[in-house]
Formats: sequence, structure tokens, C-alpha cells
Amino acid sequence: MFLQLQYGDEVIIPSPVYFNHTMAIEMIGGTVVEVNSIAESGFQLNLKGIQNKINSKTKAIIINTPNNPTGATYNNDDIKILAQICDKKNITIVLDYTYEYFSYNLNYNPLASFEHLKNLIIIGSFSKTFGITGLRLGYICASKSIIEDLCKIQDTISICAPSISQNILLQLLSNENDAIKMNFNSASDSRDKLIKCLNDSKILNWEATNGAFYAFIKIPNTENTWDFCEKMIIEYSLLVLPGSIFGEHWKSYIRIAYGAVSPKEIEEGVQRLYNQISKTT
Amino acid sequence: MFLQLQYGDEVIIPSPVYFNHTMAIEMIGGTVVEVNSIAESGFQLNLKGIQNKINSKTKAIIINTPNNPTGATYNNDDIKILAQICDKKNITIVLDYTYEYFSYNLNYNPLASFEHLKNLIIIGSFSKTFGITGLRLGYICASKSIIEDLCKIQDTISICAPSISQNILLQLLSNENDAIKMNFNSASDSRDKLIKCLNDSKILNWEATNGAFYAFIKIPNTENTWDFCEKMIIEYSLLVLPGSIFGEHWKSYIRIAYGAVSPKEIEEGVQRLYNQISKTT
Repeated sequence: MFLQLQYGDEVIIPSPVYFNHTMAIEMIGGTVVEVNSIAESGFQLNLKGIQNKINSKTKAIIINTPNNPTGATYNNDDIKILAQICDKKNITIVLDYTYEYFSYNLNYNPLASFEHLKNLIIIGSFSKTFGITGLRLGYICASKSIIEDLCKIQDTISICAPSISQNILLQLLSNENDAIKMNFNSASDSRDKLIKCLNDSKILNWEATNGAFYAFIKIPNTENTWDFCEKMIIEYSLLVLPGSIFGEHWKSYIRIAYGAVSPKEIEEGVQRLYNQISKTT
Repeated sequence: MFLQLQYGDEVIIPSPVYFNHTMAIEMIGGTVVEVNSIAESGFQLNLKGIQNKINSKTKAIIINTPNNPTGATYNNDDIKILAQICDKKNITIVLDYTYEYFSYNLNYNPLASFEHLKNLIIIGSFSKTFGITGLRLGYICASKSIIEDLCKIQDTISICAPSISQNILLQLLSNENDAIKMNFNSASDSRDKLIKCLNDSKILNWEATNGAFYAFIKIPNTENTWDFCEKMIIEYSLLVLPGSIFGEHWKSYIRIAYGAVSPKEIEEGVQRLYNQISKTT
């Protein structure tokens, strides 16, 4: 973002928006333009809405797929259409693939389609892929000139990733497939359990999305889930996030993160949610 | 800097300047105003020069002491005068104390004097203090409101320091004095050896400064040391930095870093410098 934006430039992001994208853009004087995704389509991209928001100030579009907080894996054809528009209008497209290995949809192979685009920046996360979030490791793929400039920016921030983290990653990469598979299977098991528990609860409904390890769920009869989430932490020791931090439009939603939660804990967590919701409905 | 600067704001830095300070400020649209330190006084602060450069655009002054690249430990009274001026004019004073434990001057105890200042930001480095640069750990001391805002910025960059790095630091902190002393003694031995070797060389002269682990030395009969440094790398496998990267004014200087170099290696390194200089003079 440092590289791409001047004061007043606009960045389009499908909403719900991962809040750190918004903070990073506003921190350097850019403006975030949210375009609400379509809940009824499993939070897929609102292509028409995005196109309508593109203007001369638009410098970038950030696509986070699989998405945090919805878990939506965007339709590949939609991303392709968007990439073509960006290419034509010289808008940078940032593909945030943090959760790319957490896709419960076998047809998902996005990287291959975009190799030819010059104004493309791909963000990835070793932390999520290998379940090593504490090591703080990610990567960026882009054209050589972009990477060279990004290295200068990196030099003013952390200079480089910690050497111990890098060494651990090297070990994991040497047995990449097994390490990723183990991590994926664990999230997948928790997801299956979450789907079952939510269905069994009768009150809570989730049309399961296909990626990441998040569920974005509407809480019945609750206009703003901020107090609800506060209550869940204080009275039930359960951490879920209020939808409003992902955009004004999503006040009645909560985000459940099931990535580091065992199936047994999922069962207990959904029961606690159910207990609180039953009280108020 | 994110917190303090708008486009066009000025930051005063005594020169030679650690280049990453300049990059970080320019990256967000600020302007660096260099004030040359006085080489003849052992690169001490040019107080009058700094005062002359303060104007309505001045938002911050960065003081890096002990200094990289000169090793100068600035006079405590000078810093105090500067801090008072900043306090009066509501200018943020950033004290970069990365090398605070590498002071070969027993009277150096700067932190105690500035506790009462509100617009003070102190930067420190565990990486340097404990010789654990690969772990990428540092700290910032400032007023509560500044720290709260800095946490938001941190959240958009690396979120937090790696957990392994933090755990190793905890171990080191539990036996802090010994760990610091060991690291200091090692740098001190190398410094003693460097002073001796430079004196013995007859050609190279250094009026040793009192801190950090850097020597900033003028190369005789060389207007610009860029080519000289390139030659030292390629022909002599010796890495020294050209003075020009620390400011235009210092083109005839080089920086020697002796922190992670043994006394024996120092001897060999100075010999290689001497060989090259003898050739050209």
C-alpha cells in the first residue's frame, strides 16, 4: 500500500472487510471503498457493485479469498473478470491468498490463471498454511520492480523475518505436502463438526462457505452483536467477533474462528452460543 | 513516524544519518532536514545548527545516541537542552537508544533525565543489547496514548513479535546483567584492538568515539569512498560502508562495524584496508 497510494487515492474492498486492510490504507491517507458482498449467494463477490465504484481515484482492489471473516471462496471466473478490468484500467489487484490452502473445494487453483498480469500483487501466509502463526512469516509475489521497492519498505520496518522462524520454515517446506495436509485435515474436521452442531441447534443457521476457517453467522433478533460478543467473553469465556468490525452493514453477524479449535471444543462452544441466544429469543 | 507526520512535515536529524530513518520518513511524505555534526568534536551535536533549522514545519527531532555510524555518545547536557526546546515548541523528540548498552563512558545514563517529558519517544533494541539480531526484537517507551496508537500501527504490519523470539528474550532478561556484560565486553575488546591497529597503521586515524560498535573514518586522498568500498568487497572480501549513504557531506568517510568481529579478525581487516590505501597514496 505504501508503494501504490497517494493521499486521497481509493481502494475498493469487498465487504465484510478484514479490518487490518482498512487500517493500513487509512494510516497512509488512502480511502477504503467497501462494496457489500451478497450474503444470499454465500458472500460471493458483487461484481456489478465493484464495477460501479471504479473511478479515476481507484488505485487498487483487494480480493481476500478464501475470505476472512466469511470463509467464502470467490468464484474463479469472477476474479478473472475483475483482473481483466484492472489490467485494462491500470488498477493494481491485490490477491490476499492468506487462506489459499484452506479450500474445501477441489476445483480451486487460482494462481495459475493470473501469471501474465503485471499489476498483480499476491499475498500469502506461511503462518496460516503450516499452522505456525507465532513465527510471523508470509510472502509476497509480484513483478521484480515491485518486489525491489517492497524490500526497501521492509528495510524500514523489520529489516527481515527472524532467522529462527526462517529456519523452521525451511524444515517444513522440505516436507511440505504432509505438513499442509495435516493442518488442513484438522481444520476440515472442525468445520464438519461446526456444520453439524449449528444445524442441530435449530436456531443457528450457516450455509457453509468453502474456505478459510471462519464462519460468519447472523444472530437472530439481534441488531448489533457488539454487546452479545462482550457477554460471550465475560459470561461464557467464548471469543467470537462482532460483525461490525468487518463493516457497518454486518452488525447482526458474528465471526466464529474454528481453525485452532478441536471438534470437541466446537461442540462446547456452539452449546454456549445456543444457551445465550435461547435466553434472549 | 506514521503517528507524527503529515505530508510536508519536517524532521531534523543530526548527520551522519542512519539511512533507514531517512527512508521511513520519506516513505510517508515527510522531509528530512540534516544538520551536520562536528567531526572535529568527535561528531558531537551541532546544537546551534539544529536550533537554526527549527521552524513551524518541524514535527520531530531524531537523536541516535550512541550513534550509528560514528559511535559518538552525545553530551548529556546537549540532549537536555534540545529536549527542553522540543518540550517548549511541542516538537516530538525521538531518542534512538539502540546502542545504549554499548557506551565506553561510565557517566552515560540518559534515560533518568527525561522521564517527565510528554512528547518523548524512546526506541531501544533487544537485538543489539543481547547480540540477538536474528530474533528481530526491540521496544518503544512513550506516553500511554502514543503507545496505544502505535499498537494499532503494529497490528497492520507484523501484529506482534514472533513468540519464539519473545520466549528466548524472557530467558535472557532473567539473567540480564551477565548477558549484557558478556556482549559489551566482547565489543569492548574488539574496539581496543581496532584503536591499536588503526594507530599502528600510521595512515588511518580515528579519534575513538565512546559508543555503539562503529568507527567512522576519513580515508586519506579519497573524495568519494563508494568505489573504494566496492573494491574492498570484491578484491579483499571486506565489508565496510561508504560514508555517502549516511549523508552527502561524508563522501570521504567509511564506516567500520566491529560489533560481531573478533580482535583477530579486526587485525586482519585493518591490514586489508591498509594494503588498499597504500596502493593509492
